Order: sequence, then C-alpha cells, then structure tokens
Amino acid sequence: MNFCSNCGARVELRLPTGDNLPRHVCPDCGTIHYENPKLVVGCIPEWDARILLCRRAIEPRHGLWTVPAGFMENGETTAAGAQRETLEEANARVEILGLYALFNIPHINQVYLLFRARLLDLDFHPGAESLETRLFAQEEIPWNELAFITVRRTLNHYFSDQQSGEFRFHMGTIEPMPRKDGGG
Amino acid sequence: MNFCSNCGARVELRLPTGDNLPRHVCPDCGTIHYENPKLVVGCIPEWDARILLCRRAIEPRHGLWTVPAGFMENGETTAAGAQRETLEEANARVEILGLYALFNIPHINQVYLLFRARLLDLDFHPGAESLETRLFAQEEIPWNELAFITVRRTLNHYFSDQQSGEFRFHMGTIEPMPRKDGGG
Repeated sequence: MNFCSNCGARVELRLPTGDNLPRHVCPDCGTIHYENPKLVVGCIPEWDARILLCRRAIEPRHGLWTVPAGFMENGETTAAGAQRETLEEANARVEILGLYALFNIPHINQVYLLFRARLLDLDFHPGAESLETRLFAQEEIPWNELAFITVRRTLNHYFSDQQSGEFRFHMGTIEPMPRKDGGG
Repeated sequence: MNFCSNCGARVELRLPTGDNLPRHVCPDCGTIHYENPKLVVGCIPEWDARILLCRRAIEPRHGLWTVPAGFMENGETTAAGAQRETLEEANARVEILGLYALFNIPHINQVYLLFRARLLDLDFHPGAESLETRLFAQEEIPWNELAFITVRRTLNHYFSDQQSGEFRFHMGTIEPMPRKDGGG
C-alpha cells in the first residue's frame, strides 16, 4: 500500500495512538488503513456418499481438483457465500447442512470455512472457473491431483468421519510449505 | 474508495472481465481493489461457572459490557486472535477450548467467531480499551447493559448449554436493528 484510498496522498507506516501494530496511515486526511485476513468459504457437496469436486480452469493450481470455495463477498453470510461459490464453479445447487471445518492459513492471511452440504439435484456442469465437475466416491478421489492442502485435509476428515458414523467439526492451521531447496 | 492504493490514480467502479460484481479498478495500473468481510474473534473466558466480561472504555457502546473480542489481524490464527484480544482488553490469559459460535452480520460486513475458553488465573485487570473487568455468574449478567446483540445471544446459548450439560456449536445471522421511526 502506497497511497491513501480516501484522498490519494502518500501513506506512511506508523503506530497509531493506542495501537500496538504499525498501520498505513494517511498524513493528510488521517485515515488508518487496516489490513485484515480474508475469509474463504466453500462446501463439500454430497450426493449419495459421493462428493462433487471441480477441476480448476484458473490459477493457482490450474487443472487440479478442489471443493467449490472462494472469497466471501461483502453483504452475504458465510453459508450464502459457500452456496454462491458452488453455483459459480459448478452450477450446482446445495442445501447447507452445517459448518464442517475451519482452517487458519496465517502466512497468507486467510481463514477457510467449509460447510457440509447436500446437492439438491444432479444438473451441475462446469462454471467459467472450472474445466470439469464430477462426483467422486471415496475410492475415486484423485488424491495426487488435489489443488490445496485444505481440500486434502477436509476430504480425509470427511471420509474418516463418514466411516465412524459421526461428522464432527474440525479446526486446523496450515503452515507454509517447506522450500524444496532446503532454505528458509 | 476514491484512489488506487498502489499507484495513487483515481479508481473507477467497473465490472472486471469474468467477474459478476462491480469493483474499484485502477485505470492506470490495473489493480482490482476487492473489499471483503472482516473477522471479529473473541472468547467466553470461564472460571468456575463464571464468565469474564469487560466494560467498554471506547466507542461504540462505551460503558457497556462485552466478551473480549476484536478484529483479527493478519498473520495470526483465529484462536490466537481471540487470545490476543483477551489479553489486550482484560490482561487475562486463557486456554482456548473450541469454537462456540459464528455470527454473520452481513449489513456491516463482519463475521464473528467466538471460542469457549478457560481463564488460566485470576490476575486480570482492565486493558486500555476497558473501564472494568469482572467475573459474572449467570444470575449476575447485566442483560440490559450488554454492548452487542452477539454478546447477548452468545451468553444465552452459553448458559442454556451449561444447564443442559452439553456445549454445542451455534451459528446465526444478525439482521439490522429496525429503525425506531418505523421507516426503512
């Protein structure tokens, strides 16, 4: 952040009075520009013990499989956001059953909220951001072609819970991937 | 939002290619400025069936009581944010027990995540944003002096669950308050 989005002046990084973190502050109009984590909302759409996954038509992770999920928008609820993403990515209509997983990803300032959901019909097809949409039974999940670690963890929890007969809420934190060169 | 925080040019409200909502877009550098809901994280600190509340020293709702909670910061987890807010507002150290409530407040673009927590000691005292901090048994809760509807709902759920012997996760949506003149 270089300029004040309110008045256009160049911002300064400084500690506002009474605060304990440096913020981008406008020296002209005084606006403090807070930056906060973003929510990613999505769901695990189920039909008859099979899960709907989408193959991504966009970066990052083009060509890999994910559950429908995306950035929550202003003015919507978390569940409505999950339904909207499912409609956008898979043209699929779902009933939200309950919150299933929360993942903190502090190094990229994101929080994932994933819901259990029930597909209302089988009239789904890829949206603009998907190459392919299909139902997978547990033994068909493309474990080596999943787009995100959140998806892998969620599906692991899901099938484990399904086997045990009880779906519990799961919370976890995703750490940065170790660098392949052994550094950092 | 009037100016691009990246290059300082005046932004335009337009529909980016492939998007379905108007965004503030910079005509000079092309940056799309997304605006998303903010997470408020906090907890219900318990000690021996009593709950720690803070009386607010700041607006909004100066002088009214709340559970410790505030905006989640970049780089932290939801639980760490709840612990940090509890330390800042009440100088209290807590162990986080689990997610207890999620409230959507779509008309102000906020999502509350409140955790059950256990106070680790009784050495709490008001932080800079609190006038007073104290433990309340159920029959002592100042129901008519609570700062936010989220606090009222959370405490209602909490004591009801406590009575039933099982703490369940709760999710809800807060609608705008009806206007007193009967309009809107």
